[in-house]
Amino acid sequence: MKILIIGATGMAGSALVTEALGRGHQVTALARSTEKLAQLPTNDQLTTKVQDAFALTTADLTAYDAVIDAFATAPAQAYRHVDLATHLVAQLRDTTTPRLAFILGAGSLTTGTDHHLFVRDIEQDPQAAAFVSVPQNQLAELTFLRTVTNVNWVGVSPAANFHPGPAVPAIQGTDELLANAQGTSGTSAGTMAVAILDELTTPKHHQTRFTVADR
Amino acid sequence: MKILIIGATGMAGSALVTEALGRGHQVTALARSTEKLAQLPTNDQLTTKVQDAFALTTADLTAYDAVIDAFATAPAQAYRHVDLATHLVAQLRDTTTPRLAFILGAGSLTTGTDHHLFVRDIEQDPQAAAFVSVPQNQLAELTFLRTVTNVNWVGVSPAANFHPGPAVPAIQGTDELLANAQGTSGTSAGTMAVAILDELTTPKHHQTRFTVADR
Repeated sequence: MKILIIGATGMAGSALVTEALGRGHQVTALARSTEKLAQLPTNDQLTTKVQDAFALTTADLTAYDAVIDAFATAPAQAYRHVDLATHLVAQLRDTTTPRLAFILGAGSLTTGTDHHLFVRDIEQDPQAAAFVSVPQNQLAELTFLRTVTNVNWVGVSPAANFHPGPAVPAIQGTDELLANAQGTSGTSAGTMAVAILDELTTPKHHQTRFTVADR
Repeated sequence: MKILIIGATGMAGSALVTEALGRGHQVTALARSTEKLAQLPTNDQLTTKVQDAFALTTADLTAYDAVIDAFATAPAQAYRHVDLATHLVAQLRDTTTPRLAFILGAGSLTTGTDHHLFVRDIEQDPQAAAFVSVPQNQLAELTFLRTVTNVNWVGVSPAANFHPGPAVPAIQGTDELLANAQGTSGTSAGTMAVAILDELTTPKHHQTRFTVADR
């Protein structure tokens, strides 16, 4: 597959680049920093590109089989998660290719016996004040995506602690925050990358969101 | 006020142009057709502009005190209602001026003792099949807008029958489909124009939607 990875130098993006190259896909890694792109592994299947994702056109995007949105931004501009999703969707209305995969936060998952949004818990944590705008806007991003019926999109949420690290055996769910048998709710970037590449290779979720966690 | 009206030659847009000029505002009427723009009233406070609304930049928009989205499109491309709203919002993040006013459909209003969405009734009507995508997408548009907390927006829905005609005495509500004492649920383009210009002059609704109907 020809895969475009937006935000390719971040924690999730760089794990996706490695996983996709390992599977023999033709990868284009897009980011804002030439320096960070230069740190990606050298591979003749990898093309790096410094480009503003908000300037990607329909022609740019339809050159790929799949586009993965692993964009990250400063909490003060967390609304850009929403704006990039709306931009990508607007460019791809009434298409089925490329498949658009969005990495969403854990905040839009539900938890507890009353199935409340996990972001409501994050909002109660004073230590999260500096970055709570990110899960709030990733919830808005999913809310928007759920209204989109004519673009081939899928969303993936990690568990509570989205952390660097290689893939480990995983568990999957739909809209409920997952924890493993030890009660730990975490997803490594490697586990996320495997889940997304598996989904792109063998689509199981259509215009919906699923979640993956380390087992 | 300097007011930009998008979709200025349509039923709602042309009524807005007339009402705004009548109140002495400085109006820029934007549309895709030179011919239709030429049919608007001649007035030294009116500027007409043929421009793709999807190409409006932050600099274009911030030249106005208010921007009214009266965009209309063919049902097959009804998603463009959503895409224009997301485009305008993305250009105006973290601003308070211009105020953005969106004309939404009646489909996102609730009705009946169970407060179901009126669009669910429209979907049951075989005669509405040809245009039901419009209220469906205007509901998606409102769903998106409701996630937006850092742009100065307001939405206005008409009653069930949005029709041409001059302003008449009106009733207002929030999220419930309105009908008059005779049981008629209608809003004239003139009534809508008055409600929007009143709201822009004396803001009463902040980042929310209200509805207006002919009394």
